[in-house]
Amino acid sequence: MAFRNVTHFFVEFGDCDPAQIVFYPNFLRWMDAAGHRYFHALGVPPWQLRPERAHDLIIGTPIVDVHARFIAPATYGDRIEIETTIAEWRGKSFVMEHVIRRDATLLVEGREVRVFARRHPVDPARIQAVDAPASIRERWERSTG
Amino acid sequence: MAFRNVTHFFVEFGDCDPAQIVFYPNFLRWMDAAGHRYFHALGVPPWQLRPERAHDLIIGTPIVDVHARFIAPATYGDRIEIETTIAEWRGKSFVMEHVIRRDATLLVEGREVRVFARRHPVDPARIQAVDAPASIRERWERSTG
Amino acid sequence: MAFRNVTHFFVEFGDCDPAQIVFYPNFLRWMDAAGHRYFHALGVPPWQLRPERAHDLIIGTPIVDVHARFIAPATYGDRIEIETTIAEWRGKSFVMEHVIRRDATLLVEGREVRVFARRHPVDPARIQAVDAPASIRERWERSTG
Amino acid sequence: MAFRNVTHFFVEFGDCDPAQIVFYPNFLRWMDAAGHRYFHALGVPPWQLRPERAHDLIIGTPIVDVHARFIAPATYGDRIEIETTIAEWRGKSFVMEHVIRRDATLLVEGREVRVFARRHPVDPARIQAVDAPASIRERWERSTG
Repeated sequence: MAFRNVTHFFVEFGDCDPAQIVFYPNFLRWMDAAGHRYFHALGVPPWQLRPERAHDLIIGTPIVDVHARFIAPATYGDRIEIETTIAEWRGKSFVMEHVIRRDATLLVEGREVRVFARRHPVDPARIQAVDAPASIRERWERSTG
Repeated sequence: MAFRNVTHFFVEFGDCDPAQIVFYPNFLRWMDAAGHRYFHALGVPPWQLRPERAHDLIIGTPIVDVHARFIAPATYGDRIEIETTIAEWRGKSFVMEHVIRRDATLLVEGREVRVFARRHPVDPARIQAVDAPASIRERWERSTG
Repeated sequence: MAFRNVTHFFVEFGDCDPAQIVFYPNFLRWMDAAGHRYFHALGVPPWQLRPERAHDLIIGTPIVDVHARFIAPATYGDRIEIETTIAEWRGKSFVMEHVIRRDATLLVEGREVRVFARRHPVDPARIQAVDAPASIRERWERSTG
Repeated sequence: MAFRNVTHFFVEFGDCDPAQIVFYPNFLRWMDAAGHRYFHALGVPPWQLRPERAHDLIIGTPIVDVHARFIAPATYGDRIEIETTIAEWRGKSFVMEHVIRRDATLLVEGREVRVFARRHPVDPARIQAVDAPASIRERWERSTG
């Protein structure tokens, strides 16, 4: 079974909108954070600390496609958990799935397609998709049952 | 042709992440804002000023489902435009489409399913989906060619 | 000694700007959250759940004045702690102090002046400062050594 | 008289909190953006495009100290303007002042102390304060009456 990581967030007053529920882009913010924590749980160092040469430096995993279904709202004072997994590897891209719950209540299901990116070797103002680093794939395979 | 509204945003330094590109939940934040401006362009007053009785008060249009495709990144200093339309009405829910461009470059395509919501008449801590107010549907139909 | 509460936050990738350090308004966002957790630690229910009649309902503690000194930056992957106290009560307003650290390193010192607010009894679109509720003052005094 | 720049922001639904007023860190976010636009209005290119060698590259103007007074709240649908100036130059640091208004109503007065920063030449993970670039001081002096 694919490696899963569970992480927690606390819904703050300032995360909610005048309807008193979570302003929805914050759910995507938490999914993004859960993705970083997923790689961290695999033992991958934060992107800025990668020990490769500058032009190979992975600077992040930009989003290509996101889909989320919002099943129940959350409000401030709620403690939520996000269960994250990589559901599929596709060469330069991968599919990350997030399930957000408050206790037993399903709140949100999210699915992100992302790529690994580095600065373009010729024009550093641009970014370039690259194959998933082998070291990251291997860590994931070792952690997957 | 369905009524369309175009609105503009400026990408700020603080909207970008350490990879120097827009932190992606901000695109959803701008789509949410574009949705509010769409209703405003139709002449619908902001939700908190609706003149109906309290228990009929529309308090917002919570998200049910969102899908976005990210075609090209943006960075700070960019001026972006969002073209928004309601592509479909479905009783309690409706489909809003957003196309985000920087000049001629397509950046993001987004599609939100939303419902109109009011406070639950019995338990005001809960929110409840309601049919699209007739006054809003009518404004939209009059503005649609 | 005045009651103190310590709370923790994790600095996410998306909390940082293109200079790779925390985008500074996020420190204020965390101070705001730490203030809510401070009242929660005192046993005060979240503002929207206050059991008084609607026109007495405390809807929050709007800011009147903030001062913050930024001594050292933080970046993603950092775990920070905020130590919060109410340093002074002044009738309708109070002074909250926040000290933000990463381990032994002092990062930020913040000082907020806030008021308790309710909806204006005649015009609910306005908010009105009111004296600190006696029940909150008493909880604080009991928790202060 | 010191060069002044006026810029505008629209208060979105998602910028407001459950008390239906602007979540206060957003005022600091707008002040930060107004600071960037101030330099842009002076003709200074965005930080990432500075033509100097990498180790001289100004990567931003990190905050050292901020003080803000909140005189009146704002809510969604409001259009606000920020009038920004540099009130003082102090070698490595400078003082930026922001006055935020909605029409004739004063909402917020802010005062930021900032430094110009570059990557540390030996340890690029650190940042380092440097003297204000002469080219920026000169642009400011030419624009100041």
